[in-house]
Amino acid sequence: MRQTSFEGFHCSLARTLEAVGDWWSPLILRDVFAGVNRFDDLVEDLGISRNLLTSRLRGLVEHGVLQTRPYGPHPNRVEYVLTAAGSELVVVLMAMTAWGDRWRTPPGGPPMTFEHHGHRCRPEVTCAGCGQPVEAGQVQLRAGPGGRTAPGTRLIGTRLG
Amino acid sequence: MRQTSFEGFHCSLARTLEAVGDWWSPLILRDVFAGVNRFDDLVEDLGISRNLLTSRLRGLVEHGVLQTRPYGPHPNRVEYVLTAAGSELVVVLMAMTAWGDRWRTPPGGPPMTFEHHGHRCRPEVTCAGCGQPVEAGQVQLRAGPGGRTAPGTRLIGTRLG
Repeated sequence: MRQTSFEGFHCSLARTLEAVGDWWSPLILRDVFAGVNRFDDLVEDLGISRNLLTSRLRGLVEHGVLQTRPYGPHPNRVEYVLTAAGSELVVVLMAMTAWGDRWRTPPGGPPMTFEHHGHRCRPEVTCAGCGQPVEAGQVQLRAGPGGRTAPGTRLIGTRLG
Repeated sequence: MRQTSFEGFHCSLARTLEAVGDWWSPLILRDVFAGVNRFDDLVEDLGISRNLLTSRLRGLVEHGVLQTRPYGPHPNRVEYVLTAAGSELVVVLMAMTAWGDRWRTPPGGPPMTFEHHGHRCRPEVTCAGCGQPVEAGQVQLRAGPGGRTAPGTRLIGTRLG
């Protein structure tokens, strides 16, 4: 259940979570990415209730992460596909999946692997500037132009460089 | 509120969400990363209730993402710091933050920026094999050794290559 809206938080992580930050939404995006695009199939795959799925799909469409596309002869039958924003978000979820493969390995090993350009795709977060893998211990945080001392970021600005 | 456990899902994304997949946990990790390490400071920064924060911190410690460290003269006073797993997860959250900067830009621009090695750090997800940025449209999903037709992945295996 959503208790607090992060919409007004001056934090791009919070604003991302506002779009996809509940339990189910990232898994719905995973499924759509994997070709599970239709409502009944999502229900079957995830074991999510129809009401909850309806609500989450509506949110993902409203936030511009998914879009609907008609299929079959009935114009009001739709399936869900990724938008450009959704496609970029899925790539972040791939990096999150790689973290899970490493630190929360399921019995038997990775449940799913990725390929691209004919080889195993191993997602890691690098810096677009220097190409090096990002290491948290090497990173300094700085206040940006949109930073505010406001709900969700009441104190953090005072700790930034 | 947590309705369904993803613990038994044969999916590394689901298992990651089990560790950090509620509204608040990623923001708690953001704060700890930014040097907001103490309970009362987290309450003040986030505006989260003390009960909820207690519960989330306990979960993050149990899942090996945060650890406690005593501070000051009282041995039972602790602050929270990232584990090795938590540090790697924060890097994924940096990529998620970059997505938010781009697609959910707050008024005024990015609230926070990153620096490393003396220059702006721009997180992006690349392939450790070939060094190229990962693009969802180029990626094929494959069933891995730990894949199962089970709750949370009832159907998805049939859609993989």
